[in-house]
Amino acid sequence: MTPMKIRKALISVSDKTDIIKISKILVQIGCEIISTGGTKKKLEKAGIKITDISSVPGNPEAFSGRMKTISFNIESALLFDRKTDSMEAAELGIEPIDMVICNLYPFKKVSEEGVELEELIENIDIGGPTMIRAAAKNYAYVTVVTDVGDYDRIINELKENQGSISCETRYELMRKAFNYTADYDDHIAQTLDHRAGIKSLRFSFHQGKNLRYGENSHQQGLFFREANAQNSLANIKILHGKEISYNNLTDIQSGMDAVGELSASGCAIIKHNNPCGFAQGKDQLSAFELAWAGDPISAFGSVIAFNEPLQLKTAQFLQLDNKDKSKRKFVEVIISPSFSSDVLDYLKFHKNLRIIEYDISRSSRRFEIKYLCGSLLWQDTDNILYKELRLMTDCGFNLESEQGLIEFGLKAVKHVRSNAIVIVREHNSGYYQLLGMGAGQPNRLIATHLAVDKARENLIREYSDNELGSDQKKREDYIKRELGKAILISDAFFPFPDNVEVAADSGIKKIVEPGGSIRDKAVINCCRELSVSLIFSGIRHFKH
Amino acid sequence: MTPMKIRKALISVSDKTDIIKISKILVQIGCEIISTGGTKKKLEKAGIKITDISSVPGNPEAFSGRMKTISFNIESALLFDRKTDSMEAAELGIEPIDMVICNLYPFKKVSEEGVELEELIENIDIGGPTMIRAAAKNYAYVTVVTDVGDYDRIINELKENQGSISCETRYELMRKAFNYTADYDDHIAQTLDHRAGIKSLRFSFHQGKNLRYGENSHQQGLFFREANAQNSLANIKILHGKEISYNNLTDIQSGMDAVGELSASGCAIIKHNNPCGFAQGKDQLSAFELAWAGDPISAFGSVIAFNEPLQLKTAQFLQLDNKDKSKRKFVEVIISPSFSSDVLDYLKFHKNLRIIEYDISRSSRRFEIKYLCGSLLWQDTDNILYKELRLMTDCGFNLESEQGLIEFGLKAVKHVRSNAIVIVREHNSGYYQLLGMGAGQPNRLIATHLAVDKARENLIREYSDNELGSDQKKREDYIKRELGKAILISDAFFPFPDNVEVAADSGIKKIVEPGGSIRDKAVINCCRELSVSLIFSGIRHFKH
Repeated sequence: MTPMKIRKALISVSDKTDIIKISKILVQIGCEIISTGGTKKKLEKAGIKITDISSVPGNPEAFSGRMKTISFNIESALLFDRKTDSMEAAELGIEPIDMVICNLYPFKKVSEEGVELEELIENIDIGGPTMIRAAAKNYAYVTVVTDVGDYDRIINELKENQGSISCETRYELMRKAFNYTADYDDHIAQTLDHRAGIKSLRFSFHQGKNLRYGENSHQQGLFFREANAQNSLANIKILHGKEISYNNLTDIQSGMDAVGELSASGCAIIKHNNPCGFAQGKDQLSAFELAWAGDPISAFGSVIAFNEPLQLKTAQFLQLDNKDKSKRKFVEVIISPSFSSDVLDYLKFHKNLRIIEYDISRSSRRFEIKYLCGSLLWQDTDNILYKELRLMTDCGFNLESEQGLIEFGLKAVKHVRSNAIVIVREHNSGYYQLLGMGAGQPNRLIATHLAVDKARENLIREYSDNELGSDQKKREDYIKRELGKAILISDAFFPFPDNVEVAADSGIKKIVEPGGSIRDKAVINCCRELSVSLIFSGIRHFKH
Repeated sequence: MTPMKIRKALISVSDKTDIIKISKILVQIGCEIISTGGTKKKLEKAGIKITDISSVPGNPEAFSGRMKTISFNIESALLFDRKTDSMEAAELGIEPIDMVICNLYPFKKVSEEGVELEELIENIDIGGPTMIRAAAKNYAYVTVVTDVGDYDRIINELKENQGSISCETRYELMRKAFNYTADYDDHIAQTLDHRAGIKSLRFSFHQGKNLRYGENSHQQGLFFREANAQNSLANIKILHGKEISYNNLTDIQSGMDAVGELSASGCAIIKHNNPCGFAQGKDQLSAFELAWAGDPISAFGSVIAFNEPLQLKTAQFLQLDNKDKSKRKFVEVIISPSFSSDVLDYLKFHKNLRIIEYDISRSSRRFEIKYLCGSLLWQDTDNILYKELRLMTDCGFNLESEQGLIEFGLKAVKHVRSNAIVIVREHNSGYYQLLGMGAGQPNRLIATHLAVDKARENLIREYSDNELGSDQKKREDYIKRELGKAILISDAFFPFPDNVEVAADSGIKKIVEPGGSIRDKAVINCCRELSVSLIFSGIRHFKH
């Protein structure tokens, strides 16, 4: 197929941006412009000569604009095969139209304004899609322009190629046109269903990029951007490092979700989609150190997310430039809302480190979906931390002074896979730290054991790092004291009191859980007996 | 809006099923039928009088059928407002068309046949969508029928209402029509993109049902069916029990996925999306017992999936009718390819138990998707168990006789959340059992500890259940012996030899892992030193 000279163009646009600009070029190359309605008025006002569409036989503008462009002659002029049907076209008096520039009534905008159904339906474009689809079908000869963003390239091509449009461009614009009409009817169908109280969802995803592989190297993996998404993970800026992987992307999302909730400078360290380190405080470096100390082994090879611009001293905690390579803390990905050039330069010591800039405001997801076989689960996001903090047993608990820590802990447990238990503490004033967590267990008791074991392990290291001596008894006292200050939080109710026993045995004195079990009474009694303050939060935080 | 008498109908269908049937009724109620092309021929052959579309002014059939129905007069007849535009219509000589029966060129079918691009594009219907969309927009007066499945209700309504169609029906058919044209252009856009090597995905989900709530009670949850899905989780039949929940559905999918892989009669017990029990063998009851013994505590409240019709004796293992209520094993959901009436009657003892029938052949998912913020990850399913089983250290390992167990173990570990470790054994000839598993850990070593601990716990119980005595030493010997027969499988390589040490310490003598770590050599050496047979499988099975 060859370039096609644009001799006659049909223009009918709802969004009139730059329409004069492209029309003037068409006039310059000697193209006749057919138009109607508002488009025609606007172009004529700009001094452009227009052939009124009504001069095409059988085509008055009628019915208050409901009928503007549809006619046998217009659609024939777009659709007929220039090779095989030319004689027939000539006999019928039909001259080819070589280009359509058209965009549609703003159904989406109007529907979002919440207008009445009647007005909404009036905004469904009939002639536009017909014209676009006819032109697209006949892309072998016809150029169809549906995106204002394409005007410049069309203008350039017309100028460079003596008023012709290449086959490659027509082919691409054709695909764009069918995507455009598909999106348009997707939106209409979904909106009208919703108005009728019927639930349907339509998604389209574009710009699919091959990832190196999926979750595993024998699986093919692709990453798409959602059409018209206001916020998209695809908007992250990859500033440096190895190619982003499938698993990186899920961890990056988890990191952004977790750290996005924090109310002070914070850090989330993600491994296999769970936060194994999580902390917040006034000073970023201190928060990072506390997060790292939550699980210094798992933190290697992790995805680390910050909610504030990464500071140089924070970055230097990784010791990426340490001559002693064993001191360097290798992680897979670092994400932050922004990086200054000194921080970037520093991080780039690590050649493979993926450095990601993201928009912190994006962490406001409205919903989550899970695709199952030929079906979909939709839910709004889990965005209520607690209903009410009810002190069920009071063994010396100051709800007011502990509220900040409880909220931090609930933010942590929300992002840990169920069954989930976290132990959080206020390390020093205003610095909250995830001290231990148990994730993804079929049995809650095991999650409690995991969290307690991790917290103990961390406290033992802390004791030794602080050079507090080697007396076992003193160390146990230290651990009990620290755990006594900490709060253990469960993402769902305790089905039995055994969780309380394990926690109390370790030194835990404060527990937050949603409550709601048929055995709540036994759990409360157990807490009372073991001098544990129990707080019911009223909100479960399952995450699978 | 009132019922509309159908006086004139336009019929143009690609799928001609039942078109004579509905046309005859239209004739009976005195409706004039306009038609063209193949539809017209077929109807006339059946003795139905047809007005040729060319008799509508300005509307010849032309260009080898590319132009059949589009004309100013036809679309005006569909679109004009019967209230405000009647005068204008009369002046233009346009008579209203009250009904459109239309379905489109089978683009999907043709595209699946893999025809050349040119032929594919020839199969894009232009006139049909125009007609359908015009009629749908004017649903206040016009009835649009796009689904052969709706003919009967239309026939009934025409008969019952003296040839009229109600406003409610027109409204519903209008929404159906826009969904139809949206689906049609979705498919065109996606197919043409794919042909051009461009990756795009379009999904539509319908019949959204409110669930009681989402993952948690403060989240709204909805369940949708994917349009045109061949296999759908939405096809499960709920035979009995409490309303299905959001979390039930994800567990049901996990159960179907896991049990669908098994090559003998098998059972998967799912808790929080992980299989905590998993077994197969010739006899279903025995397999169920072995699965249950994998984690009898977590099995309470689980979702249990079978890959063969559930037998009565298997079901009776749950002791739902036991007078001693403490003996009853309560689970949330039981799924099986079918249930005989005696099994159903038995299970219904448990009023709340959700009993689910599903199509076992459906367990062939082709891909998985994960929705992240404004973006999508797509991957094909993890369907390669291993590349090659390479014996890296041979401490008395018979690859041939162990192959069945290894394959079973790989099927298990595939479905456990990463980091994942499973311990599997051949309980008795041909009966494979998941003896312990560690799921969802940020640190692989903890997963190994979890799996070993669970296996030990199970063997201790087994020892006591089998009344093998109370000698601690003998019991330890028993455990070591059983673990010595078992195989430990890791979903990904061991980063350090410490996992081998923990495993060997417990008595494990056989390990399968994919290999591929930079420290493989250290792991191999460690296995050799500790007399552990190590097999590399070459395929990682991350699942997050």
